[in-house]
Amino acid sequence: MPQRPPLTPLVDSLPATVPFVGPETQERNHGRPFRARLGANENGFGPSPKVVEAMRVAAPDVWKYGDPESHDLRQALSALHGVAPENIVVGEGIDGLLGLIVRQYAEPGTPVVTSLGAYPTFNYHVAGFGARLVTVPYEGDRESLNGLLEAVRREEARIVYLSNPDNPMGTWWEADEIDRFIAALPETTMLVLDEAYCETAPASALPPLEPARPNVLRMRTFSKVYGLAGLRCGYAIGKAEVIRAFDKVRNHFGMTRITQAAALAALNDRAHLEWVVDAVDACRRRLTAIAEAHGLAALPSATNFVTIDCGSDGAFAMRVLEALGKRDVFVRKPMAPGLDRCIRVSVGPEAEIAVFEAELGGALEAAQRVGEW
Amino acid sequence: MPQRPPLTPLVDSLPATVPFVGPETQERNHGRPFRARLGANENGFGPSPKVVEAMRVAAPDVWKYGDPESHDLRQALSALHGVAPENIVVGEGIDGLLGLIVRQYAEPGTPVVTSLGAYPTFNYHVAGFGARLVTVPYEGDRESLNGLLEAVRREEARIVYLSNPDNPMGTWWEADEIDRFIAALPETTMLVLDEAYCETAPASALPPLEPARPNVLRMRTFSKVYGLAGLRCGYAIGKAEVIRAFDKVRNHFGMTRITQAAALAALNDRAHLEWVVDAVDACRRRLTAIAEAHGLAALPSATNFVTIDCGSDGAFAMRVLEALGKRDVFVRKPMAPGLDRCIRVSVGPEAEIAVFEAELGGALEAAQRVGEW
Repeated sequence: MPQRPPLTPLVDSLPATVPFVGPETQERNHGRPFRARLGANENGFGPSPKVVEAMRVAAPDVWKYGDPESHDLRQALSALHGVAPENIVVGEGIDGLLGLIVRQYAEPGTPVVTSLGAYPTFNYHVAGFGARLVTVPYEGDRESLNGLLEAVRREEARIVYLSNPDNPMGTWWEADEIDRFIAALPETTMLVLDEAYCETAPASALPPLEPARPNVLRMRTFSKVYGLAGLRCGYAIGKAEVIRAFDKVRNHFGMTRITQAAALAALNDRAHLEWVVDAVDACRRRLTAIAEAHGLAALPSATNFVTIDCGSDGAFAMRVLEALGKRDVFVRKPMAPGLDRCIRVSVGPEAEIAVFEAELGGALEAAQRVGEW
Repeated sequence: MPQRPPLTPLVDSLPATVPFVGPETQERNHGRPFRARLGANENGFGPSPKVVEAMRVAAPDVWKYGDPESHDLRQALSALHGVAPENIVVGEGIDGLLGLIVRQYAEPGTPVVTSLGAYPTFNYHVAGFGARLVTVPYEGDRESLNGLLEAVRREEARIVYLSNPDNPMGTWWEADEIDRFIAALPETTMLVLDEAYCETAPASALPPLEPARPNVLRMRTFSKVYGLAGLRCGYAIGKAEVIRAFDKVRNHFGMTRITQAAALAALNDRAHLEWVVDAVDACRRRLTAIAEAHGLAALPSATNFVTIDCGSDGAFAMRVLEALGKRDVFVRKPMAPGLDRCIRVSVGPEAEIAVFEAELGGALEAAQRVGEW
């Protein structure tokens, strides 16, 4: 038997499992498309028409590599946030930036803290660089600030991940609580504060940006309210020297030219953003009402999804999820103990929400019937 | 002075230099745009109009994440190349895939072989993962197959990088020479065979695809003849188990939705591809004639650029490059000793080639005047 080039021991040890199976894969397996795509916290209200037009204008120029400095986009973000361009790094979605952060601050064995049931893609990167993941259970469906802090101190963690508002539960902490958490962190622990859903949160949940602070990276994205998930654009705001270090490891020409043009146009259409935020809020209330009409409780949400407590255990909620899938409704669910009683339903256009509404009752009945076997 | 989260020793040790400064940065520094953008081996003939149309159609759907499996694109590539979809991984340009390959097969200290003066972005990734780069000089303006093989054996290298046709010299080896090189490689050394320019090479330079071979990855891209550099799409062809290992480390949702749609449309427009290949060939002859009219020799080229021997040393060629830059002509040049006597001029539309033609004489005179000081 011929030998082959050996993977590094670390890469060889990694599982073949992936953080998320895409809805397209499920559709190929089902042999038909979903009627309601409400599982990936995308923004079904879509991008601004001005973004679509900007993409059309930029399309013939895609023969040119994109600007590796994302200069114009960073200038616009600088103006929006009132921080210097040197405080901003743009990357291939928060996913891509999370990988770069773990690579910069963690080696094999480095302790990294997150919540049990928080973002799987962060955990994927932690495993991918051989770091040691330490998890802290949620408390009352929120990430436990005290628990995270205690774990950071106990483990002398180099990185701690916190999403606010939270995915997958939709819950949030007020800014003063986050500020206290930041103030209490060891100076040598990098806080990755994932604010992917910040635009749909109450303003009171967002601490002011403090780019002079060397141990906080604020993560933002164009994938949610801006409706550009399929263009891969996220950014991090932090201290200039922290931001500069990304240049040592990032894929410099990795940002597509179209994405830079689209993100810039998205930033400039504040009216569309406000319209989306209102639509998200209305749809959250609609999803909450649907849940309640079926005797279920919806968690309060500061995000573009609503997490619905199916009123039983994780196995039951999984059957609800599967029954919805058979009815061509794509949703996802938390998997960690305690959170796993819930399903997570993204907002979307009324046509798809109506499909969810029409199918939820049948899915709950199906889940109960299986439970009675 | 407050402490800050420490970078890993490896990342801390990396230089802040980047492989390439983008032309946009140079334009911002100059305060005006280039009149001829002929430095990045882009395809100024542009993408197919059918690609532009496919992007327009796909634009409103960018609120959806792209298919993390790039299923449809891999199916089309499978049909084109006569290999299974399981033999193909799609990624964010060859640049992105090179980073993933180094990460999979190299650790700190692992020997990796390349040619002295070959692709800087590969070297960037090798440094980025702490591997040990071993370089082999070109011979007669071609990568030295014997030299590379000797270094691989001597160092017990885990990875060897070879571009065919070559960047930055434009030269190439015939397929039978490449085949002999592959056959002579240790089974435990991964050959990264960068064929970014394969479509503009003689067919005789391309060995048949042999996806059963576990130690060869054939790298292809949409950035060159397909004219999609700004969309970031490359792929690797290799043995299924080798390709599967990318799933352990890649950014699964990293491919933009627009890119997948555009690349698929590009593959389906063979007439445009043939037109571009003809235009590249005509432009290579035109650039060669311009060089000769100025008393310079152009190297034979199998790529979308022509490497021009400026007839003196590296310092002189650098002055020519700088003088062209002052005349708003963007070109690049090889930097390694022996190769550095040349500048590298990408093909492009006649309007830009005419600017290069008009400015070359003045640039050569300016370079000579400085030399006489």
